[in-house]
Amino acid sequence: MEEVHTVKSYDEELAHLTGIIARMGGMAEAQLTAGLQALARRDDDLAQRVVAGDARIDELDREVQSFAVRLLALRQPMAVDLRQIVGALNISGEIERVGDYAANLAKRALVLNRAGITAPVAGVVRLGEMVRGLLKDVLDAYLEKDLTKALGVWSRDEEVDAMYNAVMQDLITLMTEDPGTIATATHLLFMAKNIERIGDHATNIAEALHYQILGTSPAGSRPKGNTVGGPE
Amino acid sequence: MEEVHTVKSYDEELAHLTGIIARMGGMAEAQLTAGLQALARRDDDLAQRVVAGDARIDELDREVQSFAVRLLALRQPMAVDLRQIVGALNISGEIERVGDYAANLAKRALVLNRAGITAPVAGVVRLGEMVRGLLKDVLDAYLEKDLTKALGVWSRDEEVDAMYNAVMQDLITLMTEDPGTIATATHLLFMAKNIERIGDHATNIAEALHYQILGTSPAGSRPKGNTVGGPE
Repeated sequence: MEEVHTVKSYDEELAHLTGIIARMGGMAEAQLTAGLQALARRDDDLAQRVVAGDARIDELDREVQSFAVRLLALRQPMAVDLRQIVGALNISGEIERVGDYAANLAKRALVLNRAGITAPVAGVVRLGEMVRGLLKDVLDAYLEKDLTKALGVWSRDEEVDAMYNAVMQDLITLMTEDPGTIATATHLLFMAKNIERIGDHATNIAEALHYQILGTSPAGSRPKGNTVGGPE
Repeated sequence: MEEVHTVKSYDEELAHLTGIIARMGGMAEAQLTAGLQALARRDDDLAQRVVAGDARIDELDREVQSFAVRLLALRQPMAVDLRQIVGALNISGEIERVGDYAANLAKRALVLNRAGITAPVAGVVRLGEMVRGLLKDVLDAYLEKDLTKALGVWSRDEEVDAMYNAVMQDLITLMTEDPGTIATATHLLFMAKNIERIGDHATNIAEALHYQILGTSPAGSRPKGNTVGGPE
């Protein structure tokens, strides 16, 4: 049953909260895109802009936190609205972490470029593109309150893990066959891990949206491929 | 100014919330300790118990989330109490992630043991012991509401990063000198990273406690050593 707000400005405040999250999400998407581009094109300037850009996402996360706390204090919401505010707190934290990982990706790209090494980045970039799609879809799902789309993201995490394992295996094979690549490949290993974790956070956002709309977590275990990595 | 609660059972509910967090924190500490032990002593049974034990921490995190939401709905708290509940939500999430990293550590220890490789684990174990101390201190600080102790943890994160960089460098040197160690060393690299991230989460808990008590983040930039890792 839909609650009718007698004071319209409360709806506006909830919309404002959602708006900040939408902005954060857009920034995090853009940061991941730019980080992957900086890696693929060996673009130092772009990488540095990504690193510097993370502070803005952190700022918005703090804004969500304090705005949510104010809303809770002043409006004392019930039920659905309460879950929406708590959901916003959760999702904001997830997006903030995605931003961190994107900035870390860019930092490592800088290190690789400065060492003057041409690294085999194609696998990592492909993995990044796959996760970028997941992130975009889950953020769309959040804005549209589209649970079906969110659950679609949730189930695609397994594909990410499969590609991640393949990328890891390739890098280990490379390092074993050519020890001269170890330092570079180590960076790529961590970049792949960062990207895989962004995929995890996209899945977390899907779960948080499920909880926000239905009040429960998605049924059954979360689909996870084995990502311990390395030869088994 | 201290708020006096006219209904005593609200204080009991806040205490209950803190109690769940305390239990989660204790479990996460124990999981990290056991994970490091499983690695140092090549103890498969212990590693498996750590992996299985993470579900309980996840369960408690969900309990904190739903209890906090109920408290917010039923009690409609103001000011300090509101920050305490939001703080509990944040800190619970941080502890849940520490638990995840500890379980990942144990999973990798299992993989190492099953591959029958004797790995040079001493550096990683030492790093883990350092972070275990940080985690213990910040959880104590949370329970005691001791801001000085929490800020002490916050500033020690730099020491963790320095030791982490040293461990990473040693592993890369090892891999370069002996390519036969690459698969094993890769696991150790990620274990070191997991531990370093647990240190980050301990620092996050210190920041969350600062916010909970004072309503602001700690002044100045967060102390961070360079942890991009690898040779520069």
